[in-house]
Amino acid sequence: MTAATSGIDVRLAMPQALPAVERACRIPGGFLAGGRAIGIKASGRPDLALIVAGGGGPAAAAGVFTPNAFAAAPVRLSRAVLAASDGWVRAIVSTSGSANAATGAAGDADQARIGKLTASALDIQPGDVLHLSTGVIGTRLPLDRVAAGLGDLAVALTATDAGLEAAATALRTTDSTTKVATVSVALPGPDGTPRGVRVTGIAKGVGMIHPRMATMLSVIVTDASASPAVLSRILRPAAARTWNQLSVDGDTSTNDTVLVLASGAAGAAEIQLGSASFASLAAAIEAVARDLARQQASDGEGATCLLTCQVSGAVDDSDARAVARAVVSSSLVKAAAHGKDPNWGRIAGAAGNARLPDAAVLAAAGLAVDVAAARAGTAVDIDPDRLRIAIAGHLVFDGSQGGPQAFDRAAARAAMAGPEILIRLDLGLGNGLGEAFGCDLTEAYVRENSEYTT
Amino acid sequence: MTAATSGIDVRLAMPQALPAVERACRIPGGFLAGGRAIGIKASGRPDLALIVAGGGGPAAAAGVFTPNAFAAAPVRLSRAVLAASDGWVRAIVSTSGSANAATGAAGDADQARIGKLTASALDIQPGDVLHLSTGVIGTRLPLDRVAAGLGDLAVALTATDAGLEAAATALRTTDSTTKVATVSVALPGPDGTPRGVRVTGIAKGVGMIHPRMATMLSVIVTDASASPAVLSRILRPAAARTWNQLSVDGDTSTNDTVLVLASGAAGAAEIQLGSASFASLAAAIEAVARDLARQQASDGEGATCLLTCQVSGAVDDSDARAVARAVVSSSLVKAAAHGKDPNWGRIAGAAGNARLPDAAVLAAAGLAVDVAAARAGTAVDIDPDRLRIAIAGHLVFDGSQGGPQAFDRAAARAAMAGPEILIRLDLGLGNGLGEAFGCDLTEAYVRENSEYTT
Repeated sequence: MTAATSGIDVRLAMPQALPAVERACRIPGGFLAGGRAIGIKASGRPDLALIVAGGGGPAAAAGVFTPNAFAAAPVRLSRAVLAASDGWVRAIVSTSGSANAATGAAGDADQARIGKLTASALDIQPGDVLHLSTGVIGTRLPLDRVAAGLGDLAVALTATDAGLEAAATALRTTDSTTKVATVSVALPGPDGTPRGVRVTGIAKGVGMIHPRMATMLSVIVTDASASPAVLSRILRPAAARTWNQLSVDGDTSTNDTVLVLASGAAGAAEIQLGSASFASLAAAIEAVARDLARQQASDGEGATCLLTCQVSGAVDDSDARAVARAVVSSSLVKAAAHGKDPNWGRIAGAAGNARLPDAAVLAAAGLAVDVAAARAGTAVDIDPDRLRIAIAGHLVFDGSQGGPQAFDRAAARAAMAGPEILIRLDLGLGNGLGEAFGCDLTEAYVRENSEYTT
Repeated sequence: MTAATSGIDVRLAMPQALPAVERACRIPGGFLAGGRAIGIKASGRPDLALIVAGGGGPAAAAGVFTPNAFAAAPVRLSRAVLAASDGWVRAIVSTSGSANAATGAAGDADQARIGKLTASALDIQPGDVLHLSTGVIGTRLPLDRVAAGLGDLAVALTATDAGLEAAATALRTTDSTTKVATVSVALPGPDGTPRGVRVTGIAKGVGMIHPRMATMLSVIVTDASASPAVLSRILRPAAARTWNQLSVDGDTSTNDTVLVLASGAAGAAEIQLGSASFASLAAAIEAVARDLARQQASDGEGATCLLTCQVSGAVDDSDARAVARAVVSSSLVKAAAHGKDPNWGRIAGAAGNARLPDAAVLAAAGLAVDVAAARAGTAVDIDPDRLRIAIAGHLVFDGSQGGPQAFDRAAARAAMAGPEILIRLDLGLGNGLGEAFGCDLTEAYVRENSEYTT
């Protein structure tokens, strides 16, 4: 057995079954979009974005939001709009540079005013508008600039790839890249002939120049036709397997938001629960979500590499995801990843601490609660004598074979030097699969978060 | 209202009621102790310690242990010894430099062999011996050196302060200080006249030269007279309020162990549940535990300051402790502490993520489960509109007064520059109190944990 082939072959069904993702921004039919700089950010970078359902009717929408008790004003307003509209909306407005979090009743009033300004500029109703914001906590948004900017931007929206990419760029704070992903699928039309459908995601990750809560915003737009209820059924498990498995520094933001909008403009038949089209669209949305989450992890504050943990052999998928999340969230594992140190003891220790998320947090986040109530919040089933660990393709620990395994440390270190470090664990207990995405912990992270004041 | 007087006056009943602690090592009656270097550590520093009940009879004992699924061989053996002996033991043997964790059946056999060697050297039984170990995960202990060292050390034990301090020094890995704390109390003897009783703690904190899981070992010895059941009733809530509120990097070790031994040598009457003596001894033990936990936090890897969070006004103490723990565990709060940045947004965000520990983990750790079963694992009750936050004496956020408060930022930064940063939160909901101890996150932490390989 050579070191290079001794890794655990973790067969992750879902990711392997997901369609290919193109890291390009291709706007689906039925949407207009744009972004511009209006001076919320001192840097002068783009900080206002609009995505609008341009086909005459509203778009179906679904969302998941931060469970943080300090959920920001835009998060609370978006939740209310989704509930009141039964998931039918016409626009997303996004500001960056100020989170409008912990701003109290004044912040709520500001966000409501932005809803009215957006509605006025687009000739729709405030109840048609979903809200995103990201940036410094505790600062107010400059409403005069937002008002002027919305008026200018509303007349400059385009149904082009460039328009949506401009919106993606305006989501960014200190992201080093604009994050986009597109999947194209064919879904049957009402007459049975296939129609080309696009699923396009844009996102911002976590980065800081002026310290603030790490924030994550993502929007997926598609020209598939689906009801809000169907979109929600697709989004929640997809988010649970992708964004909920993303950790940069363990701090859950006040502003995290994921929205999915479907315009129906591709002319494909409306997707019914349980149909083949449902599975196709779900796979496309999850593929986009997974790719965006990986982009966000790669671009974590101070990060030099993506840290992926894949887990098989758990009692169930929830356990597998909890273990994967514990591993990529461990400061010690993250520091070892930075040092290219195949330090399996830290991985075993982190896995041994894994526990299932508690039901209240899952419910607050609006994620799919596929954790049995009796098990929520409890420790994961794990048996050191059955656990196997592979780092970058090198089997380093096998509990059924006495534990620590001899391996080529120099080769393992070399294999850890690339843009992604893959840690695989097999728990040897069942068929549960899961993965999680993080990044290394670097001195740059500490510098970025300690050298500047809000 | 001046900045200096605008902080929240959090009245933490327990710490204020605790007796004064002397940072000195004063050995209680009835114990012999010593430590020496036997070459487990490459550095040549002391790495073997013995603490022995020297009064002819066994000592009453209680312990709490890591809930990590990868609990080390010494942890598992100590648990078994405590159970089989009904809490009556005669010795503690401690090795440092190798954790004997994730070493499988061979590691268990090694630890059992150390128990036999210790028993042989002291003319007691293996079932009389509790075990501690700390160091690199996945390495075996050098049994030949341990055997020779135990023989030499057994005949060199002394009933002196220096002997116990030598044992404390031999617990250390890369701790920058030997951690000791003593409380003296008077408890009534059988005839009612007061007897001087000592409660002395020794501990190792968290530090790394060669990366390993952060580990925490603590031993408290006292010459009070108490049954194992009474010691356990004292230890569990004390540990829940002190060591369980200690976080350096969020990684729970495979080896964490706290042991309390009572020799009865002071001649005080045996302590009964609910008596005044029970309260006195409990306060003394908690004072020692709290002081050691603060020493451990101050000496965290790479740390330059102690980070203390005190919470009042929670629905209950469990909620208060969970919020305090969430604040001192946040990477962003820890980095802001390093930057002397009064970044209350990060504190609010961390508090908003707080959740109660889950019942399974509490049970596995053997800590007092004072969390109602229905609430275990759920989110803490917190209301942004009632929350107040003070940093180093400066009120920075008051939810009932619109949120963000004007404060003297330069003065706050200056007040954060000392050896301890105190963050106080009042939740405005009830009478729950709690505190937690951590340290700042520094570039030195990242360097120590990424630049060296195991």
